[in-house]
Amino acid sequence: MKASQFFISTLKEAPAEATLASHKLMLRAGLIKANASGLYTWMPMGLRVLRKVENIVREEMNRAGAVELLMPVVQPAELWQESGRWEFYGKELLRLKDRHDRDFCMGPTCEEVITDIVRKEITSYKQLPKNFYHIQTKFRDEVRPRFGVMRAREFVMKDAYSFHTDYESLVKDGYQPMYDAYCRVFNRLGLNYRPVAADTGSIGGTGSHEFQVLAESGEDVIAYSDESDFAANVELAPTLPLQGDRAAAAETLTKVNTPNTKTIADLAAFLNIPAEKTLKSIVVAGEEEGDLVLLLLRGDHEFNDIKAEKLEGVKSPLTMASPEAIRNAFGANGGSLGPVGFKGRVYADYAVEKAADWVTGANEDDYHYTGFNFGRDAAEPVFVDLRNVVEGDPSPDGKGRLKLARGIEVGHVFQLRDKYSQAMNATVLDNNGKSQVMEMGCYGIGITRIVAAAIEQNNDERGIIWTQAMAPFAVVIVPMNYKKSEAVKAAADKIYAELSEQGIDVLLDDRDERAGVLLNDSELLGIPHRIVIGDRALKEGNVEYADRRENQAQAVALNEIIRKISAVLKA
Amino acid sequence: MKASQFFISTLKEAPAEATLASHKLMLRAGLIKANASGLYTWMPMGLRVLRKVENIVREEMNRAGAVELLMPVVQPAELWQESGRWEFYGKELLRLKDRHDRDFCMGPTCEEVITDIVRKEITSYKQLPKNFYHIQTKFRDEVRPRFGVMRAREFVMKDAYSFHTDYESLVKDGYQPMYDAYCRVFNRLGLNYRPVAADTGSIGGTGSHEFQVLAESGEDVIAYSDESDFAANVELAPTLPLQGDRAAAAETLTKVNTPNTKTIADLAAFLNIPAEKTLKSIVVAGEEEGDLVLLLLRGDHEFNDIKAEKLEGVKSPLTMASPEAIRNAFGANGGSLGPVGFKGRVYADYAVEKAADWVTGANEDDYHYTGFNFGRDAAEPVFVDLRNVVEGDPSPDGKGRLKLARGIEVGHVFQLRDKYSQAMNATVLDNNGKSQVMEMGCYGIGITRIVAAAIEQNNDERGIIWTQAMAPFAVVIVPMNYKKSEAVKAAADKIYAELSEQGIDVLLDDRDERAGVLLNDSELLGIPHRIVIGDRALKEGNVEYADRRENQAQAVALNEIIRKISAVLKA
Repeated sequence: MKASQFFISTLKEAPAEATLASHKLMLRAGLIKANASGLYTWMPMGLRVLRKVENIVREEMNRAGAVELLMPVVQPAELWQESGRWEFYGKELLRLKDRHDRDFCMGPTCEEVITDIVRKEITSYKQLPKNFYHIQTKFRDEVRPRFGVMRAREFVMKDAYSFHTDYESLVKDGYQPMYDAYCRVFNRLGLNYRPVAADTGSIGGTGSHEFQVLAESGEDVIAYSDESDFAANVELAPTLPLQGDRAAAAETLTKVNTPNTKTIADLAAFLNIPAEKTLKSIVVAGEEEGDLVLLLLRGDHEFNDIKAEKLEGVKSPLTMASPEAIRNAFGANGGSLGPVGFKGRVYADYAVEKAADWVTGANEDDYHYTGFNFGRDAAEPVFVDLRNVVEGDPSPDGKGRLKLARGIEVGHVFQLRDKYSQAMNATVLDNNGKSQVMEMGCYGIGITRIVAAAIEQNNDERGIIWTQAMAPFAVVIVPMNYKKSEAVKAAADKIYAELSEQGIDVLLDDRDERAGVLLNDSELLGIPHRIVIGDRALKEGNVEYADRRENQAQAVALNEIIRKISAVLKA
Repeated sequence: MKASQFFISTLKEAPAEATLASHKLMLRAGLIKANASGLYTWMPMGLRVLRKVENIVREEMNRAGAVELLMPVVQPAELWQESGRWEFYGKELLRLKDRHDRDFCMGPTCEEVITDIVRKEITSYKQLPKNFYHIQTKFRDEVRPRFGVMRAREFVMKDAYSFHTDYESLVKDGYQPMYDAYCRVFNRLGLNYRPVAADTGSIGGTGSHEFQVLAESGEDVIAYSDESDFAANVELAPTLPLQGDRAAAAETLTKVNTPNTKTIADLAAFLNIPAEKTLKSIVVAGEEEGDLVLLLLRGDHEFNDIKAEKLEGVKSPLTMASPEAIRNAFGANGGSLGPVGFKGRVYADYAVEKAADWVTGANEDDYHYTGFNFGRDAAEPVFVDLRNVVEGDPSPDGKGRLKLARGIEVGHVFQLRDKYSQAMNATVLDNNGKSQVMEMGCYGIGITRIVAAAIEQNNDERGIIWTQAMAPFAVVIVPMNYKKSEAVKAAADKIYAELSEQGIDVLLDDRDERAGVLLNDSELLGIPHRIVIGDRALKEGNVEYADRRENQAQAVALNEIIRKISAVLKA
């Protein structure tokens, strides 16, 4: 492609509203253009990247046996009412009315539509398993669209839905092949990512992995092992019970006056001890009306409500006890609470099991105990996993220690089980002629978000650094004085023709701009390989080659450059 | 592709609501599936066809120098307010509000969005001409969606928009290249079509061609020459003045009582004369307040209001005179009107110029004149073109005679001129540094509609007949007893592997169905080339080959079939 026949539109500065690196760079490189809040046009340069991602995803979906179709963007409300989501989905579901005042929505996802199709089309176990996917424009009416296409309202998603006679097939024929296909997609895209065990959240069902591209700006925190494949969303990574014996009690239980110490930090400072010597008390509602449950964890640890909610006797969804109820049960206000004398159920985090001589609330306002010991000063609690993991915790699979990293979610595989098929009565006849509800999985990839995530992970002060698989062009030819120097023009045209003939995506930047502009743009645009052609080098029979990832350009003989490019593209 | 890894879902009968051949066949062949009124899913078989059309369109757009981008489906109201269309576009524009109560619409077309982008991105004449296109999901809230994807609410369109410094460039760099590209697209698709001069309608601007696929079920009527390229929408084809002298008057003007003859048909029947001997009178408002203009045409001809509206002295938009105004000016009611004694401006159609002795209204209720002659009984009117052409009229280009045919509009090229660029202030600096409004063209192709139009033009009682370019698969292999006969399976797998290796789109129908079902489906699906493999023929070393367009199958030696398929695919 010649720049004169294409459209390059770069900016020196990104608009002020862009704060994220990828958002800034996508605007500066002219990959996208904002049309309204959260609505973007993919400009010619950006669309080339988007299509490359799309094609890799499509190839891997086809390879995994998924069958492509195309569902509509606008979906009838009836289907969402049937699944129950018309009520439960929040304002992110953009609802609309047609000219006859009938209700529709812009699809943020397609479980209802595909389930409706499948229940009509698939009636026998012989037609299963089946996996349908499409790559389609979606809409989610974000309350605060931001970060460019990272969290836009209109976006392109690949979503696949698999249907099965039983759970075993869901795992073997649906979930696992999709998991593997996702790994191939992100490997081919050249991204540093982790498949991460994830919460199943509001969509329901059980069994789920997120695919997280590692990047400092990511909104999610991931815990992963430094020695194994283990990776999980930080909220989901389990902690293990500590090994060995409990330290012996050395102190006696002593009540001390601790005025104005409402937080662990206040308390530790006041007593001049580390926070890890203190017990944090959290009081939640029990399952039985009026019951309270006391949860204890180390003062420096972070409470995990997903884990707490699953404990026996704890009310779900997790509900904090009211100040009034706390006063009635403990005789004190929050800030001075502890296990001594409390009659209800007590859970304590694994991390506090083996230590002695804790500081804890005395259940009297402005007083704490020092020298508190489980078993001696209060009954032994039940020790469970109550906290978020921290860096250095042992990996739950027993291999290595955990590290924490930030990630951007770009894919998600999900065992929906019968959530939709049950609600919408999607059944097949099994091999005994008996009707049974299908098992279902769903699998999403954020096509537009991948582009932003890749930039987030791969950029420098000069601009974007594309991997070869995603680059809008593999090679850019930058001629100095293309319009004026016949020798430069001849060399540039020849190299362009020869690379094009080999099917290489090459951009000949024949714009009538200063050399500095062309060179800066080639770096901003992040094209992996650059050939600079100038009169001076040409006189010595050379052109200049540079790899975007390196700072150094090198002279290459004119008659060697095609071979050189072929070689680096294969590397 | 093996059928077992794909998804084939055919129906014996189409649902009752489908009346059009293409709609019925698309449902029966399982190309589409209705999700709601005017909303369809493109099932795997249909999507393959859609993508083939899309790719041909994309290739020809790229070849013509248009640059692809991707604009959003949801568009902000502000832009439509700026162009004025927010008010003027009817209920087909689906308006919606986001969670913050801001107005948006689902784009039925993208003039506003692209003009907004271009006015920000393009500031100098040096950046022009430029042509941007995308292939995108559109929405038009049809009051009565029908005929399947022929008139759906959600559909896929290719729309291109070109920008120019002047009109000459619009024609030379935009309109003509797009016109030529459209011809290449429809030629490659193998469709019988006509580019047809068209009205510019409500979109405004001047200069427009529709691309019409000829089919009996078409909603548009086209007039085209039997000897030249001339083709136009029937309302736009001009008629020519008749040659030669007027026939001499043979009758005297005679008033006759014609009770209950309100129509030309009544009158002709009452007087027992052909309708073509009568003059039809149409009275419209003149440009000056209170003025009336009388329009005369032959009783058997069809009045053309587009032509009438353009006449000097006639009010635009064309306004029929009120019954009251007619009574005041003519002294009679409609049904008995004529030129005798009328004082206002009179136009008569070319077709009545050379004949004598007309029957016309006497301007007295229930009376007509016979033997009326222009010049003798009333002043000579101005002779103009006032009617629709009829079959047999001379072609306006002087070559041959006109024929009429029905067509389905699948493409439209349009000189918008400055309609949007003026309203939205899209200007560039010209080579004198002076700001000037850009000239603009727009060019649409109905991607989804093409699929239906092609079927409308190519089907028989057995099903669809695809051209090679659009067929979901070029070849289908139908094995008899694939699951039971090892010889059949071996031969089928071998042919499948060899054709696949050559990059041929081949479907191996390995479904466990009766032979009759497989054969019927292969015809319903319209796959151009079929290879039937059965034990009996195999014993003689043969398979059976059939061309979908022919009724006859032929035996082909097993070791010749690959060569045979290669040959017919190249033919």
